[in-house]
Amino acid sequence: MTACKIKFLPHNKEITVDLNKNLIHAAMEAGVHINASCGGEGVCGKCRVMIEEGEVEGGITEKLSKEDFDKGYRLACRSKVKSDLVVRVPVESDIDTGVLNLAVMPRRTARIRQMDFNELKEQGLFVPPVEKKYLELPKPDAQDHLPDVMRLVSYLKLQHGEHRISVELPVIRKIPDMLRENDFKITATLMRPVHEGRKTHIVNVQGGDATDRNYAMAIDIGTTTVYGQLIDLISGEVLAERGEFNSQISYGEDVITRMMYADKPGGLEKLHQLVVENINKIIASTIKKAGVDIEEISTITLAGNTTMTQLFLKVNPKYIRLSPYVPASTLYPPIKAVDLGIALGEHVPALVYPQVSSYVGGDIVAGVMGAGVYRSEEIILFIDIGTNAEVVVGNKDWLACAAASAGPALEGGGITFGMRAAKGAIEDFSIDPVTLEPMNITIGQKRAKGICGSGLINIVAVFVEHGIVDNAGKFDRDLKTPRLRNQDDIWEYVLVWANETQIDRDIVITEIDIENLIRAKGAMYSGYMTLLSEVGMSIRDVDRVILSGGFGSSVDLEKAMTIGLLPEIDAEKVTFIGNGSLMGAKMSSLTNRIRRDVVNVTKMMTNFELSETPSYMDHYMAALFLPHTDIDLFPKVRDRMKERRKLKKLNQT
Amino acid sequence: MTACKIKFLPHNKEITVDLNKNLIHAAMEAGVHINASCGGEGVCGKCRVMIEEGEVEGGITEKLSKEDFDKGYRLACRSKVKSDLVVRVPVESDIDTGVLNLAVMPRRTARIRQMDFNELKEQGLFVPPVEKKYLELPKPDAQDHLPDVMRLVSYLKLQHGEHRISVELPVIRKIPDMLRENDFKITATLMRPVHEGRKTHIVNVQGGDATDRNYAMAIDIGTTTVYGQLIDLISGEVLAERGEFNSQISYGEDVITRMMYADKPGGLEKLHQLVVENINKIIASTIKKAGVDIEEISTITLAGNTTMTQLFLKVNPKYIRLSPYVPASTLYPPIKAVDLGIALGEHVPALVYPQVSSYVGGDIVAGVMGAGVYRSEEIILFIDIGTNAEVVVGNKDWLACAAASAGPALEGGGITFGMRAAKGAIEDFSIDPVTLEPMNITIGQKRAKGICGSGLINIVAVFVEHGIVDNAGKFDRDLKTPRLRNQDDIWEYVLVWANETQIDRDIVITEIDIENLIRAKGAMYSGYMTLLSEVGMSIRDVDRVILSGGFGSSVDLEKAMTIGLLPEIDAEKVTFIGNGSLMGAKMSSLTNRIRRDVVNVTKMMTNFELSETPSYMDHYMAALFLPHTDIDLFPKVRDRMKERRKLKKLNQT
Repeated sequence: MTACKIKFLPHNKEITVDLNKNLIHAAMEAGVHINASCGGEGVCGKCRVMIEEGEVEGGITEKLSKEDFDKGYRLACRSKVKSDLVVRVPVESDIDTGVLNLAVMPRRTARIRQMDFNELKEQGLFVPPVEKKYLELPKPDAQDHLPDVMRLVSYLKLQHGEHRISVELPVIRKIPDMLRENDFKITATLMRPVHEGRKTHIVNVQGGDATDRNYAMAIDIGTTTVYGQLIDLISGEVLAERGEFNSQISYGEDVITRMMYADKPGGLEKLHQLVVENINKIIASTIKKAGVDIEEISTITLAGNTTMTQLFLKVNPKYIRLSPYVPASTLYPPIKAVDLGIALGEHVPALVYPQVSSYVGGDIVAGVMGAGVYRSEEIILFIDIGTNAEVVVGNKDWLACAAASAGPALEGGGITFGMRAAKGAIEDFSIDPVTLEPMNITIGQKRAKGICGSGLINIVAVFVEHGIVDNAGKFDRDLKTPRLRNQDDIWEYVLVWANETQIDRDIVITEIDIENLIRAKGAMYSGYMTLLSEVGMSIRDVDRVILSGGFGSSVDLEKAMTIGLLPEIDAEKVTFIGNGSLMGAKMSSLTNRIRRDVVNVTKMMTNFELSETPSYMDHYMAALFLPHTDIDLFPKVRDRMKERRKLKKLNQT
Repeated sequence: MTACKIKFLPHNKEITVDLNKNLIHAAMEAGVHINASCGGEGVCGKCRVMIEEGEVEGGITEKLSKEDFDKGYRLACRSKVKSDLVVRVPVESDIDTGVLNLAVMPRRTARIRQMDFNELKEQGLFVPPVEKKYLELPKPDAQDHLPDVMRLVSYLKLQHGEHRISVELPVIRKIPDMLRENDFKITATLMRPVHEGRKTHIVNVQGGDATDRNYAMAIDIGTTTVYGQLIDLISGEVLAERGEFNSQISYGEDVITRMMYADKPGGLEKLHQLVVENINKIIASTIKKAGVDIEEISTITLAGNTTMTQLFLKVNPKYIRLSPYVPASTLYPPIKAVDLGIALGEHVPALVYPQVSSYVGGDIVAGVMGAGVYRSEEIILFIDIGTNAEVVVGNKDWLACAAASAGPALEGGGITFGMRAAKGAIEDFSIDPVTLEPMNITIGQKRAKGICGSGLINIVAVFVEHGIVDNAGKFDRDLKTPRLRNQDDIWEYVLVWANETQIDRDIVITEIDIENLIRAKGAMYSGYMTLLSEVGMSIRDVDRVILSGGFGSSVDLEKAMTIGLLPEIDAEKVTFIGNGSLMGAKMSSLTNRIRRDVVNVTKMMTNFELSETPSYMDHYMAALFLPHTDIDLFPKVRDRMKERRKLKKLNQT
């Protein structure tokens, strides 16, 4: 893609973006505030900027007068960057550039880190659990009556050095004709044992040389979304991927209600079927997209939290919900995919990630395996943020973990205008420190409908930094703006006026919303801190933080630290792995070593039940502030707050 | 049972029999000839004997005159022995006792040998493949969150020293509720690995202590009959047993026609289903008889010949029939019984005996294992006689085997009045050397319908010994009896006149029948001899002969040697194990060691394909005589013939 350089005036900030980038997004990334109330559909008409040099496409709506157009004004939210630009943002005349540049900080998201397939190959770790071997066998004759199966097994040993082979009955049934119809040239699909010395199973045979076609499915069974990848086991590439909302949602938003539903007559079966249907849709869609024959898929590896795993396996999860919170099992043997209703070949094993405890599940274990935490020399703090925050700390020698129940605030739950990360959700935000006018950026540049999790974090963080709310999350009642108001005894800030929304109501954020966010982030933060203190460490002992989960992709690290959702740590030390669960499932498809190692890893992972850890409540109470009771834990946030809160006087004067 | 002593006059032969024994059977066993043409239903009225002392019940029909009755005559075939007896048999006046006593020799059947359960226990070999263990587990609490499955596995280790446990998904599904509904007291059913060091699988859990109930099914899948035993795995006892005709018979009498049917569309599925239905009937019937709950059956072990095994497993046996006669496999992994359609619990593994080759199958291997041939110090010749004669020679250090295709003569096939061993079949025979009148004994003492295999052997042996046929199987045309005649250019002997039969036709044995028998026994005999000579041995090197198969139970060893069906060997060295296949299946149910050993045994068994062994044809040609071209191989037969053929002159004079 062509890169375009944009200079924003009067800020004098420059940023390089891809051709066709949306101009208001470019401004946000550059740390330039442009008033933009409606979220990005050109409705409010506030994001008027002058294109002084270069060219944009679009940026014209009925909100822009002919006169303005002729002068070179465009609406930033509707403009696509088409060349290097010089863009002037209209600002209050009495604000100097220094002030402007404090208003918005460029977003600092975590570095994305994915394992490298070549690295895997170089380390000799590329040994998929299921491999294909091609054989040309001598034919039986009067001097050689070796039975067909023994012939295959003997020559697997002779030609490929394979030992301890077992052949499953459905394969035995196929072998005699398969051999004779293919001139005794066939391909055997071998399933490796978890432990060396155990048996390798021949799970399929195909005519001729079929070794160039070998695929795997990797699945993350999330409470909200089921993700799948179709993986080429020859190249290690992901050929197609797809997410489906977990259809179980109709029977319960969260794991608790689903567990309750599962305990009703037929409930477990129903929830099992629904998620299997999701998986089957993902399989059908990805193989279609990649043009892969379903018969060539050799394995399916799945990871999910403990409840999702048990529902998928049709193991009633009811005792996960009831004290003392015991899962049925942590390990599951390989299961035939067809026995679970998965629409794959009869020979395909379903490999399911093991669990640690009722609330630290296979998704977290997969993340720990996929991200290599279990073989790290450094001390790693692994955090997966969703409804719960699961946290793991340790390295190759020891691992401890815990799950903090944060509630659904970060997924929009319990927030007045909270919503999932979908089109029309405010996901980014800045504020004009003088006028307190917002810059709302929505997903998909649609008129706003609500606020998603990362939007909520960004909004509150901006409020905290500028002193619009205090450390307890209360609005400064003295600020001058019509957007700040008291409705029915609750203070709130109007992000978008009704006529600029999709919902014809003012979209607001209330003090109660902020309280809910504080409780959620407090639960998470105290989770990390309790775990660290239980293992005798502080955040300073941590060499690296790994963020996992859909949430981590868009979150601005500094903002998350500002509200105390993440501990303050050098942003360079933070990496983001995306969907760790899916990554782990994919890694297991590529290297059988993980299947062996994971058993030891789950045994090694010491689980702390926070509700039974006495120090947790103290940590929690201390975390119910923005960012924290002990501001010394957040020195950089303290510095930012100090500097930015100075700007408040510009409003109050 | 009360024993009764019977003295037969004028022979002066004594025998002790059980109370209620049929008198004509007693005579046959004592070696006393009584003319008895009809087979035993009192129709011919020829078996008139005088009860001189003691008491019989019955023995009266319309064939016996009032006068005879009053004198003390009874029909032997209708008389039950009720006390010690002195019985006088009416004989031709000019025959002395010495002659009489040569007419019939007491039957010499092989000693029956069955393995002893206590012996197994003493040797520490009593370790069934599936065992139950009772556990009382501590309950989880706030300090102990061990998942249910891991709790079970840990305490199996602690309380029972069990290691390397794997738990199957259907069991995992049951465990959580099972534990809580039974106060954490449960019984786990463990399936042992074949090899030490491999995994033990928990295949079932039950509430409370269920260790006193553990049963197994052992099944012999015969071409003609499917036999089953229900075995108590606590006591080692057979609680019930049952045989069912193999329903596949409707689709082919022999294995070849069944293989051909199996290759037609739907044929394999059909034959598979039929035999599974047979097995299910046997299960249903035996558990009903023994009052055992079907859920308490832990394993089913099956043995059959290679074709029967493949049909049962739904593995098309067509290449067994086609040169170079290759079976699909010799080993089969444990399979879930339910996956094969067997009506047992979902957790029950079906353990199938391995094969050696296309014509030395699991039934033979089971016999070799069950009879302990594979751990014998002595050289054993193991012979299983049916349509084929399979033969194994060797000891604990080496084993060789072969299969001789004998044709169905011994099962009544190709014999004019041949029939299976069923009611009305002539099974035993002697002849009056003077009048050449027969003594026919039928199964069930019914009027004769035909001749079964052992009857055929006995008849021809009697003919040979008395010189009624020569060594080539041709009748002596000079003998004076209306029973010997030439019909349509074929010589035959009338065993039963039409009016004394169930079928209103003369039941005869023809020279063609005898030729067929010679070919059958010749194929078998040359099979043993070829195998022995291929391993550099003669019959003199053999320490012991073990006979297996339903056939061996009733056969008179001397008679079988007389016609050269068995090699001549001291009768003391011959033991009979009955259904060796069923015996092996039962042994495998009781001791897991066999499952491990059998893999090595099948590898050790060197298979000779007789059709490709050059010496076979020479051996075969030499065996097409009664007993053999080389009479020196049968010195005792020679002596018997010499002595008895003298009697011929009594007829001819």
